[in-house]
Amino acid sequence: MEHLKRYEKGFLKSFTLHICGMGESLVDEKIRPIIETERKLESESVSFAILAHQMIIDVKANVQGNDEMILDETIHNLKLEFKEVLQENIYGEDKETLESVVGNLLAKNGRTLSVAESCTGGLLSHRITNIPGSSMYFKEGVVTYSNESKIKNLNVRRETIEGFGAVSEETALEMVRGIKRISDSDYAISITGIAGPSGGTKEKPVGLVYIGLSTPKADKVFNFNFSGGRIDIRQRSANFALDILRRELLKEKHRK
Amino acid sequence: MEHLKRYEKGFLKSFTLHICGMGESLVDEKIRPIIETERKLESESVSFAILAHQMIIDVKANVQGNDEMILDETIHNLKLEFKEVLQENIYGEDKETLESVVGNLLAKNGRTLSVAESCTGGLLSHRITNIPGSSMYFKEGVVTYSNESKIKNLNVRRETIEGFGAVSEETALEMVRGIKRISDSDYAISITGIAGPSGGTKEKPVGLVYIGLSTPKADKVFNFNFSGGRIDIRQRSANFALDILRRELLKEKHRK
Repeated sequence: MEHLKRYEKGFLKSFTLHICGMGESLVDEKIRPIIETERKLESESVSFAILAHQMIIDVKANVQGNDEMILDETIHNLKLEFKEVLQENIYGEDKETLESVVGNLLAKNGRTLSVAESCTGGLLSHRITNIPGSSMYFKEGVVTYSNESKIKNLNVRRETIEGFGAVSEETALEMVRGIKRISDSDYAISITGIAGPSGGTKEKPVGLVYIGLSTPKADKVFNFNFSGGRIDIRQRSANFALDILRRELLKEKHRK
Repeated sequence: MEHLKRYEKGFLKSFTLHICGMGESLVDEKIRPIIETERKLESESVSFAILAHQMIIDVKANVQGNDEMILDETIHNLKLEFKEVLQENIYGEDKETLESVVGNLLAKNGRTLSVAESCTGGLLSHRITNIPGSSMYFKEGVVTYSNESKIKNLNVRRETIEGFGAVSEETALEMVRGIKRISDSDYAISITGIAGPSGGTKEKPVGLVYIGLSTPKADKVFNFNFSGGRIDIRQRSANFALDILRRELLKEKHRK
């Protein structure tokens, strides 16, 4: 959706691209040449802003000028240029969110999803089900906050938790395999980590998060060291979990 | 926490009381005599604001004057007067939230909690576990979005869902009994409803929500007809679920 305002000096239109899985400085480096070139043009004025928020980078462009057709063309070309350098790191535009994009991909591919959360405590399920129609693809979520509930609800082995810890690659893997099998979903995500403020150790500091992903083909675990407070760490974990799933869904050939 | 600013004309302090389970007009009616009386006094100036947001009513008072001791006394007395008329409908002050208050009560009473969510999709678990230290009392949550997962994860009977519907008093009751038994918690909450925008019927419109509460003594189901959009209905459901639990926890004698 482009925003249109009639200005004294003509028209102002803007768009925002949302990026995940790429650092702010790298995004800046990639788009800098495009921005520099645009600023040298004289036909219309273009301004840019880069905003980073919980591992999501927003690139916003405002284009102003007297000729609406030229404006639209400028926007079209700018988007193409941005997409060329940022590629699939761009997950959406304007009002799209990671959960809406993931939801669309799941619906389009005819796939289902279930999640098992520890440190995010239901945030991931909540965000996924915020999308109207999510009951089409979201089967179930479990918030296994205690070790006992990981064992009981997800069949994580007691020895795994005792041997490697509740926050470990091994536990994340058993969690995601557990929820996938129990829910009989095509895709599954697990998250286990230390959101803080307490619970961190030298080996496993606050911000350490393991995200398990199970696809129809394979099971993987990703690990992260997030900075920030409890709420940041939870949101960042959910963002990355959705982004990891999104990238996997993009690879999948549409089944229909 | 009282906010203190030094003004040209003296001091300004303010406080906010949070209320749930009481309509805005009733709150207004109850506190009106207090406000009217205060406005007639001349020693300091007091202003009030009432804000309603997703079934929560905030009463905010600003007190301004030259003598800090008189200000403090005024605030103390105002709070006492408000509490006298609003009683346990006040759940907290200033930065307190329903989830922080419920968390404190659970921790103080040495009680545990688990939740089973349908239409709120993980929001309730998310809010409860937003509170640092919630792992002390929160055992587990399940998001049983599909009928199958209600049957499989919570032992809701298929006949109950087929006979009364997934959104029904009977299903809410079986959900709350299921999660309580499975998690072996002292308290349990279930939520099942129609958050919309689609899925509503004439008999069961969007906004119809059943909340089950299981305490160490009894199981109950409350039903609501919330207005608003999907996100409102979900937040309102979570607010009421927390408030119902809070009222139950207040009744309980502290075990220690």
